Amino acid sequence: MLFRQLFDAETSTYTYLLADEASRAAALIDPVLEQVERDLKLVEELGLKLVLVLETHVHADHVTGAGALREKTGATVAASARGAPCVNRQVAHGDVVRLGNLEVKVLETPGHTDDSLSFLCEGRLFTGDALLVRATGRTDFQNGDAGQLYDAITSRLFTLPEDTVVYPGHDYAGHALSTIGEEKRHNPRLAGKTRESFISFMESRQLPPPKKLDVAVPANRACGRTEPRSQA
Amino acid sequence: MLFRQLFDAETSTYTYLLADEASRAAALIDPVLEQVERDLKLVEELGLKLVLVLETHVHADHVTGAGALREKTGATVAASARGAPCVNRQVAHGDVVRLGNLEVKVLETPGHTDDSLSFLCEGRLFTGDALLVRATGRTDFQNGDAGQLYDAITSRLFTLPEDTVVYPGHDYAGHALSTIGEEKRHNPRLAGKTRESFISFMESRQLPPPKKLDVAVPANRACGRTEPRSQA
Repeated sequence: MLFRQLFDAETSTYTYLLADEASRAAALIDPVLEQVERDLKLVEELGLKLVLVLETHVHADHVTGAGALREKTGATVAASARGAPCVNRQVAHGDVVRLGNLEVKVLETPGHTDDSLSFLCEGRLFTGDALLVRATGRTDFQNGDAGQLYDAITSRLFTLPEDTVVYPGHDYAGHALSTIGEEKRHNPRLAGKTRESFISFMESRQLPPPKKLDVAVPANRACGRTEPRSQA
Repeated sequence: MLFRQLFDAETSTYTYLLADEASRAAALIDPVLEQVERDLKLVEELGLKLVLVLETHVHADHVTGAGALREKTGATVAASARGAPCVNRQVAHGDVVRLGNLEVKVLETPGHTDDSLSFLCEGRLFTGDALLVRATGRTDFQNGDAGQLYDAITSRLFTLPEDTVVYPGHDYAGHALSTIGEEKRHNPRLAGKTRESFISFMESRQLPPPKKLDVAVPANRACGRTEPRSQA
């Protein structure tokens, strides 16, 4: 499996490139609109063919590159049925998305948003904004629900093998990754914390809305294209 | 081998944590002063003991955390004899630095600065500011020399196995890593370029001095401690 982690410094967003080395089929998870040219250049230089874009959720902090990538490559865009209506393929908990000889397993991990998914592929877990390194996503907009997020993380992610590598959707402190074992032991919001204390902590936070909320959510419901797809 | 890549967003600097899983002996390559607490916390959470700090060179763009880490942990600071006089151990081309059961091989790769080293450990190559992803370090200050950099990269790095993973000292476009094969084929300053054209390109660049040059270089010659070490 060929794998790359990519970063958008303006929004602290991680994008992931996964590819099956034999067939050269490639997927991007959570691409950023401003980085589409960088990502396509890397795909080309590595001799890959982009066939799939996976979205962990409808983002509020950056505009997705999914629609632009689909226009340029014909890639399928996949996300939750609760998410953006512009996608080609709606996936749900337990689904497996094939990428050449690789299998990407879909886990529904709502709570940051109601459409949040995590993706598991060969011991790598892409958690979007559900589980972050020593943190979690917010739960105060886009149908966020702290209790739901606690349940998703503890029942669906913390039950995976401890050496599962956690690749977050963002990081603001310079961490690239973690593991399930580490987060169970050292995530300050979750380690030794009850569901009630997690909810209480999340509800006590007084955060300003994400800077791009009003622009990003409508744009991302159109896969990052402000024009309807039929006019693209 | 336990391995982590860490990022300082202000200066786009990568720091690397390497550890021998059996003995728990750990090294940091190119730590940043402002990130010392983050790095020590991670070392502790992973159950490691910091015994070594490796510097690829005397940096001009950030202040090293090496001295602060040495004071807090007793770690040995190692770098080139041409570099900072504050280090505990001077290393040269071909030396091997032991880290528990791991061996870190020292490669002299001057040209960005005259003290620039690369470190090779189990297929991972830490290139400092010599070879960057699709770029190279600058050669216009601190005894930089474009011809020397071309020679170091082409004779000492591009002769390594093509699947050697390149971990740069900085990245400004969101790339985390590359490989020797990729850089041989796709680095726009080097792929298919002669020594003369590389020198000509590097000398034609009109870049402002690094923002922290006047502060960082003297501070880094003292391992990031402005006080003499004996007063620390």
